[in-house]
Amino acid sequence: MVSFVGVRDVVGWLNSRGIERTLGELVEYVDADFRRWPAFEKSPRVASHSAGGVIELMPTSDGELYSFKYVNGHPANPAIGLQTVTAFGVLADVASGYPLLLAEMTVLTALRTAATSVLAARHLARSDSETLALIGTGTQSEFQALAFRAILGISKLRVFDTDPAAVEKFRRNLAPLGFEIVEAADAADAARGADIITTCTADKTNATVLRVDMVEPGTHINAIGGDCPGKTELDPAILEGGRVFVEFPPQTRIEGEIQQLPADFPVTELWRVIAGEATGRTSPTEVTIFDSVGFAIEDFSVLRFLRDSIAGTPFVGNVDLVVEPDDPKDLFGLVTSTAPVPA
Amino acid sequence: MVSFVGVRDVVGWLNSRGIERTLGELVEYVDADFRRWPAFEKSPRVASHSAGGVIELMPTSDGELYSFKYVNGHPANPAIGLQTVTAFGVLADVASGYPLLLAEMTVLTALRTAATSVLAARHLARSDSETLALIGTGTQSEFQALAFRAILGISKLRVFDTDPAAVEKFRRNLAPLGFEIVEAADAADAARGADIITTCTADKTNATVLRVDMVEPGTHINAIGGDCPGKTELDPAILEGGRVFVEFPPQTRIEGEIQQLPADFPVTELWRVIAGEATGRTSPTEVTIFDSVGFAIEDFSVLRFLRDSIAGTPFVGNVDLVVEPDDPKDLFGLVTSTAPVPA
Repeated sequence: MVSFVGVRDVVGWLNSRGIERTLGELVEYVDADFRRWPAFEKSPRVASHSAGGVIELMPTSDGELYSFKYVNGHPANPAIGLQTVTAFGVLADVASGYPLLLAEMTVLTALRTAATSVLAARHLARSDSETLALIGTGTQSEFQALAFRAILGISKLRVFDTDPAAVEKFRRNLAPLGFEIVEAADAADAARGADIITTCTADKTNATVLRVDMVEPGTHINAIGGDCPGKTELDPAILEGGRVFVEFPPQTRIEGEIQQLPADFPVTELWRVIAGEATGRTSPTEVTIFDSVGFAIEDFSVLRFLRDSIAGTPFVGNVDLVVEPDDPKDLFGLVTSTAPVPA
Repeated sequence: MVSFVGVRDVVGWLNSRGIERTLGELVEYVDADFRRWPAFEKSPRVASHSAGGVIELMPTSDGELYSFKYVNGHPANPAIGLQTVTAFGVLADVASGYPLLLAEMTVLTALRTAATSVLAARHLARSDSETLALIGTGTQSEFQALAFRAILGISKLRVFDTDPAAVEKFRRNLAPLGFEIVEAADAADAARGADIITTCTADKTNATVLRVDMVEPGTHINAIGGDCPGKTELDPAILEGGRVFVEFPPQTRIEGEIQQLPADFPVTELWRVIAGEATGRTSPTEVTIFDSVGFAIEDFSVLRFLRDSIAGTPFVGNVDLVVEPDDPKDLFGLVTSTAPVPA
């Protein structure tokens, strides 16, 4: 049998341990996997684009465990009551090829994206950073805020979204948790005085959520929302004037902010900074940009963490996805048996 | 909620309707999708190779439905009581990106592979074919036999496997169903007098299961087992002396029998023959070869068939894979809610 962790299971697991504690532990799993980045099999995700959005498969393997995630991105979904992003994924055993764990990953993706942003900021933002600007207060925003507070102690937020209802939702969710929240008049106002800016908008267009004149020296930017061809958030002048850090260059050049720039635009792989092989921030005035598109190794990390963390809890069940005949060469005998299939 | 069809469900569904009837109906779904082949998004499958085998993802889409299959191939698995091939897959809605149906696909892969073989033979084998040779009597063999009888009326079998226990299993499963089974002494003996030869062995090597001198004029060959780099079954002289039909050339040139031949070796796409755009067999003495590696559209067809066929039966359930918050932008509110998640 394959272990199964559904949406209700993940919610129960998270509430039983606390989101901030969970994010704190997850960051260390992502950190550990970024440090052994060369050990992973890496390829750009496999995308199926359509008029309404994209469906992607994101596989990777470290030679012992294999993982993949199914994830969609459909910006018009909320208008019909659906999530923009829905995901699920599988952890499998490389030696046998058998799936081990099937899990919902809509919530897990929100967690690993926030954990990865904080991991990048831990290495790239100024260590005296106190204020986080969030441009876009959709699904990812609260997870960003909690992760930055849990791991970097940042609790001052400046927020903006073109949808006032999204800002109100953000305040409703986070004000009771002790955050200091300033509702900005626009993106420029949100960025004003921020040490770190996270852009996480969902429009599938080449937008300019942030212009170069809005970004103060020494800022660190997490660009989350620009993550597929034709979908960017930053004024290219910000990239040209700063230093750009990426996950997996062949994917980021297709999907990230740097799709706006020539194919040889210089970037630094984030894992090299984390592993001590490349320099991160070099001065208090430098603008650093983590051009994040989301990579399969982050999904691998969160599935590995989930497997370890959820074992022995009531939040993991089984799903009947694997055939178990008495004789492995006799699938037909199992299929035509009228006796119950062995569990 | 996402519909779920597990192993026990598929077995119950198959037994309730009969395998031969099911194969007969499935062939028409595969036929219909091959006829509209240009409508599909096609790419070589995404393979993760390791010492013990391979894990693959096989996506496709017709613009309305998207499907993918996870499938492994680990030839040493039976020695430790596991299946060589295990699979599961998903059918999804392109417009929203939401998964619709999650299903086991170990059994479904066996069915669709047999259905595709018969579909090819219907167009390529001599119409007076009476005898089928099966070289390799593992998991796929009984499904081949049943499909050929159900759709082409062939009930005379000549079988060989290097493992006598596999042959005995084959006889035990099929003799009671009224097949005339000759146990051949070796592959050459099995091929003798056969009108159609199916090779379905599992060794992950460049083997020569069938030499050119074993193949009589007018034979049609289904080469099933040669389906990944370094894994072939046929003497290349058979390919050079016959006409080769394939599913998706960019994938077959990597994975099929023709990996042994130059990249410009002429092949005909099977869908063109089925759609009436290319010639199939041209004479009673021609040797035709379906160099089958298994393509994502066949998985799409069997998932589409399953969805239609299983609706309203007791063999389909639900799985908790999709988040359903009241406000689609408020994932955080759902996650932190202590109230039960709405079903």
